[in-house]
Amino acid sequence: MVQVAVLGYGTVGSGVVEVIETNHDSILAKAGVDLQVKYVLDLREFPGDPIEKKLVHDYDVIVNDPEVDIVVEVMGGTNPAYTFTKRALEAGKSVCTSNKELVARHGTELQQIAGEHHASYLFEASCGGGIPIIRPLRTSLTADVIDEITGILNGTTNYILSKMIDEGLEFEEVLRDAQQKGYAERNPEADVEGHDACRKIAILSSLAYGKCVDFTDIYTEGITRITSADIQYAKAMKKTIKLLAYSSRQENQVMAMVAPYLVDKNDPLYAVNGVFNAIFVHGNMLGDAMFYGQGAGKEATASAVVGDVIEEAQMLGKGVVASWSPEKQVLTDVSGTSKRFFVRVKGSAADSSAAEKAFGKIEVVDAGLAQEYGFVTECMTEAEYEDRASKMENVLGMLRIR
Amino acid sequence: MVQVAVLGYGTVGSGVVEVIETNHDSILAKAGVDLQVKYVLDLREFPGDPIEKKLVHDYDVIVNDPEVDIVVEVMGGTNPAYTFTKRALEAGKSVCTSNKELVARHGTELQQIAGEHHASYLFEASCGGGIPIIRPLRTSLTADVIDEITGILNGTTNYILSKMIDEGLEFEEVLRDAQQKGYAERNPEADVEGHDACRKIAILSSLAYGKCVDFTDIYTEGITRITSADIQYAKAMKKTIKLLAYSSRQENQVMAMVAPYLVDKNDPLYAVNGVFNAIFVHGNMLGDAMFYGQGAGKEATASAVVGDVIEEAQMLGKGVVASWSPEKQVLTDVSGTSKRFFVRVKGSAADSSAAEKAFGKIEVVDAGLAQEYGFVTECMTEAEYEDRASKMENVLGMLRIR
Repeated sequence: MVQVAVLGYGTVGSGVVEVIETNHDSILAKAGVDLQVKYVLDLREFPGDPIEKKLVHDYDVIVNDPEVDIVVEVMGGTNPAYTFTKRALEAGKSVCTSNKELVARHGTELQQIAGEHHASYLFEASCGGGIPIIRPLRTSLTADVIDEITGILNGTTNYILSKMIDEGLEFEEVLRDAQQKGYAERNPEADVEGHDACRKIAILSSLAYGKCVDFTDIYTEGITRITSADIQYAKAMKKTIKLLAYSSRQENQVMAMVAPYLVDKNDPLYAVNGVFNAIFVHGNMLGDAMFYGQGAGKEATASAVVGDVIEEAQMLGKGVVASWSPEKQVLTDVSGTSKRFFVRVKGSAADSSAAEKAFGKIEVVDAGLAQEYGFVTECMTEAEYEDRASKMENVLGMLRIR
Repeated sequence: MVQVAVLGYGTVGSGVVEVIETNHDSILAKAGVDLQVKYVLDLREFPGDPIEKKLVHDYDVIVNDPEVDIVVEVMGGTNPAYTFTKRALEAGKSVCTSNKELVARHGTELQQIAGEHHASYLFEASCGGGIPIIRPLRTSLTADVIDEITGILNGTTNYILSKMIDEGLEFEEVLRDAQQKGYAERNPEADVEGHDACRKIAILSSLAYGKCVDFTDIYTEGITRITSADIQYAKAMKKTIKLLAYSSRQENQVMAMVAPYLVDKNDPLYAVNGVFNAIFVHGNMLGDAMFYGQGAGKEATASAVVGDVIEEAQMLGKGVVASWSPEKQVLTDVSGTSKRFFVRVKGSAADSSAAEKAFGKIEVVDAGLAQEYGFVTECMTEAEYEDRASKMENVLGMLRIR
């Protein structure tokens, strides 16, 4: 029997207990692991809940109990999650987590500590919720040199964008609705400003490229500037708008960014709607691959966490090897990266000569909006775009094109 | 150093050699495995090819060489692949393969032999080419009870259907074109009659549901009956046509079938076009997930094979555990399974009363074709459909609706 302690009895924590109990027999049959929840740590009381007798308020009970093999940290935030994780690993217990903030901030160090104590530190659920992506990167795509990752990694912003597109609504309206439905936090900044997606692409890039990518180095834009006018242009171009977390490696140059992009209808990411997430990966041998599924939600996330618990249970006493080097990955400046840009400007398409003067060859886009028009540039660097756009006085907005 | 022998220097075999050589250093850095191709077995000569000196014609050289740790069987067909695999495993060597025919026919036995000799038998590339699906089912979705798998598992038929849809062509025309381009075999039966997809869904279902699914038990229809008229109706309904390999489990009842289906534009499988494959999985906790990528092609398939080689190299002397029980999974009869059906009939939509009499409530579909119309039934079993359709004399064709 493998004894598990769950830190935090919120949405994911209660899901973890549910998955371990509901699927206990199937897990035993398929993976040969007999999982048992011994403790649940939470500051609150849960009178009448089946876990009532397993509830503890003091972490020492867990970390000092030699019977606890695996600690599931699903508290969120960096503190006390960081201290608790470190102490568990130092006591030789394996830890798994859905906490992207902690993994992005301290994952490198925590993996090292795990390695030193023959324990495991796994975090499948930190990126893409229930979608298996961390383990495929770690164990399936090992024959490949990965050169691109593009993800729709945040369900809240994808829900908001999908709803703006389907119903022609403005950002603020949809955000309020999403908050009422519980799809967005009361303080939505981490989602809508792209910070959450940024942490996730930092984790995936560290894993894929082998060195520690610091999320604070990643250029990040959110979706708060997107308007229904942008969406009308997107529709006129048979495209949609997605918040993409993107990174690429060419030779030893790695770049990463998070920003809203126009995505074409032939792109596999086009149809990823609502709270779904998807991660597109390109390998030098594999070519294109995509992983799609529920990026959040109690059961889906818990399913990924328990997948980690099972692997850790199978590897007790050995531990699962660290996945990237502590060496810092220097990121190349975004300003040197090239793409096409869609630009909205004040005025009439009939007077597009100023745009042509600034940008050279352009493709004018008419979405039938009064007193403005749009155009698509040729492929150019971000720096070139900035330079050329600064020569025009009537730019209303810009979106990158994938 | 881990020494590898490659059986068969065809498309996949030469790809395997290329991946091991091109990505040697990256594999060593990421997975800690130093792979070396020691032998290539092929009856042909390859003068001037870099593998010339590694080429052997006699399998005994390989199976009797204690330095060979891993045998990569990419010959295809069941013989001599079966005998060679068995002998390698009995000699304690691990084997990996892309050979779905062999795995579907003898996978259960070969996994048992591997287990008895602490060797591994892996076959990631047998389903979905480069797409990681076998390992996620085996190692990531372990916390879930999988209750549905739906795959677009054959690139040739998906290419043919995509081209029929995009260009309004008939099956025979596109098949000839695909044969000229090398996307379809000269004898295309295994692909177009659904046999290839059938073997793959048998493998995936065995893995997901835990018992051996015999591919000869699976009801299988191909795409040879699909006409441009079917496609016009699909377009009128904003759907597309896909050859789906489907299996599901409810309680302990498992059913499986391969047939062309109408797929709605909101379905994640809708946008899987050309030679791409995708596998949709539903788990009781995970919810919906989908894996997408290149279902064939030299490098993509080789990337999956070498992913297996790496895992086997890491597990030398231990072996990777067998994945399903040798017990046979009894399949429930397809005739009891329910869905909606699209039916094409001779006559005018104005005379749909005969159809209503036979089928009850129907939705008439007008694709503007002369002297015929279509309709969609309510949800009913296959047996009910057969019974009702037999009461009409003017049925031109039927497609199931996903």
